[in-house]
Order: sequence, then structure tokens, then C-alpha cells
Amino acid sequence: MKLIIAVVEDKDSHRLIDALGEQDFKTTKLSSTGGFLKEGNTTLMIGCDDQNVDDALAIIKQNSSQREQMVAPISPMGGNADSYIPQPINIEVGGATVFVLPIESFFQF
Amino acid sequence: MKLIIAVVEDKDSHRLIDALGEQDFKTTKLSSTGGFLKEGNTTLMIGCDDQNVDDALAIIKQNSSQREQMVAPISPMGGNADSYIPQPINIEVGGATVFVLPIESFFQF
Amino acid sequence: MKLIIAVVEDKDSHRLIDALGEQDFKTTKLSSTGGFLKEGNTTLMIGCDDQNVDDALAIIKQNSSQREQMVAPISPMGGNADSYIPQPINIEVGGATVFVLPIESFFQF
Ligand code: NI
Ligand code: NI
Ligand code: NI
Repeated sequence: MKLIIAVVEDKDSHRLIDALGEQDFKTTKLSSTGGFLKEGNTTLMIGCDDQNVDDALAIIKQNSSQREQMVAPISPMGGNADSYIPQPINIEVGGATVFVLPIESFFQF
Repeated sequence: MKLIIAVVEDKDSHRLIDALGEQDFKTTKLSSTGGFLKEGNTTLMIGCDDQNVDDALAIIKQNSSQREQMVAPISPMGGNADSYIPQPINIEVGGATVFVLPIESFFQF
Repeated sequence: MKLIIAVVEDKDSHRLIDALGEQDFKTTKLSSTGGFLKEGNTTLMIGCDDQNVDDALAIIKQNSSQREQMVAPISPMGGNADSYIPQPINIEVGGATVFVLPIESFFQF
């Protein structure tokens, strides 16, 4: 048995918890901020059997990897809105920092 | 030395922290949600010496085990309140998911 | 690689996170209460390479050790304010409880 601690962006956490749940991984969500990633991240604890660690990691990777996203830029304040043509820009979103910890024993009461 | 991580229901957490404190176990409480248990759970971290792990587990088991509880059902909205005889029903409450983690070193500054 | 879990007072956490960040330690901050220390503490998770654990511990010790602080006492309610001469008193502030946990594996996605 292992304890997986995954720090992901808030925006990815709901989708990731759903995806983990569909494969019967149970997660506990801790609110957290800053550090490994930008402000507004979530720390998930996932207890899982040794043989399922790779599956859990694949789900985390698939649902929270760092990636580029096209966003419409905010139009400049006070600019000439008529002549302003917004160009979508690429920003980096997502990303996960994941620790797999050994467990000495595990109980459910 | 071990680090015990226990996920329990919010409603059990105060009583459990008190019971642990009476036996000189120090706990740190993290707010958490969902997953291992229903929404509204609490994650407790308890650092304790190897020879006290069993005592801590016994206190956790005693104060947060899953159990049945009789509750008065909510009377039906808009029903005929005069003729309605509420039957207490059994629901499952409580439950704890507990990880015991090895510690490489421990410090108090 | 190790996972350092440090429970410190809220009032020390900002300074400590800044000091860790200056040495390129990345921290995740979990909100927590009670237990190891007084109410209002913060739990920090810091992932770091084995050879940097001592540096991280030194920064934690330096920025959150228990120490005495002189504070002006609050003047007694309803007392004779004219004749009351406040004497600064010493209180204990700060303190850190630190666990260093082994990591089986570590990923960044
Ligand atoms: Ni959903
Ligand atoms: Ni109490
Ligand atoms: Ni700052």
C-alpha cells in the first residue's frame, strides 16, 4: 500500500477527483496554496495498493499535466476598442507535483 | 517515531482530538473534503513514538469507527402532519481511514 | 528525495516560505489548526533532495524556532489608567514541529 500526495491546480482538481473515482481510487482533498505551483492549488491524498500506483499516476498525469492553453487576452483598458483586434495567446496551465510515500500500515475503522 | 494520518468525519474530530490530547498525543488538524469518506471530513496528523502507535490507533478506533445511529426522519413536506408517525431510521455515521507512515527524522525547534 | 512536513505558527509562515523560496525550496501550504502548537498554525510540505534536507531544516529552525518576545501588556479594563505603568512581559512565540518522510518516488507532470 502507498500514499500518493498530489499537488494540482484547483481548476484541474474536480476533473481529476472524478477520473480517479471512476477507477475506484478514493481521494481526500486538502486545501492548499502556493509553492509547488501557482496560488490556488489543491493537495490530494490517495491511498492505493502497490499494483495500482501506476494506474493512479497515469490518471493524474492525464488530468493535470502542464499544458498550453489559448486564451483571449483582456482588451487594454482605455484603449481604442474599435481598432483593437485581440490575438489569442498561449499560457501554461496545470501541472502536478506528486509524491509516492511508503505506508507502514493502513486501517479502516 | 511514526506519523499517523487519520481521515475522520468532522462530527467525530473534536471528540477524537480531545481523547488523543488526554493521552498526550499531539494532533494537527487539516481541513479536508470528500473522498475516503463523505464530504465534511477532517484530516488529523499525529506524531507518536513507535511504542505508542497501538494506543493512538485504539483511541481513533474508539472515537470515530463507523457505526449505526438512530435518527428521527424528517417529516414529509406538505404531508398530513397529524397522521404522520415518524419511525426512527438507522444511518451509518463515522468511519476512519488511517495511514501509519515511517518517519526518517523528527525535530522540534 | 524527502518530503518535509513542518507545522509552524501562522505568524512565522510567510517569512519562512519566503526564506525557503530564496533558496529554491518549493513549499505547499496547508491550512491547519491546533495540536502540535497553538491554534492558528500552518502546515508546510517541502519536497527536497536528500543532500538539501539539512539546509531546509536550518532555514525552518532560523525562521520559526520557539523564542521569547517582549510584548506590552494590555492595560487593565476599567483600571486607573493614569497610575497604570505597563511593564513589558515575555511570552513564548513560534516553534516548529518537523517530520522528514522518505519518498518512494517523485514526479512532476
Ligand atoms: Ni463531478
Ligand atoms: Ni473539547
Ligand atoms: Ni513575502
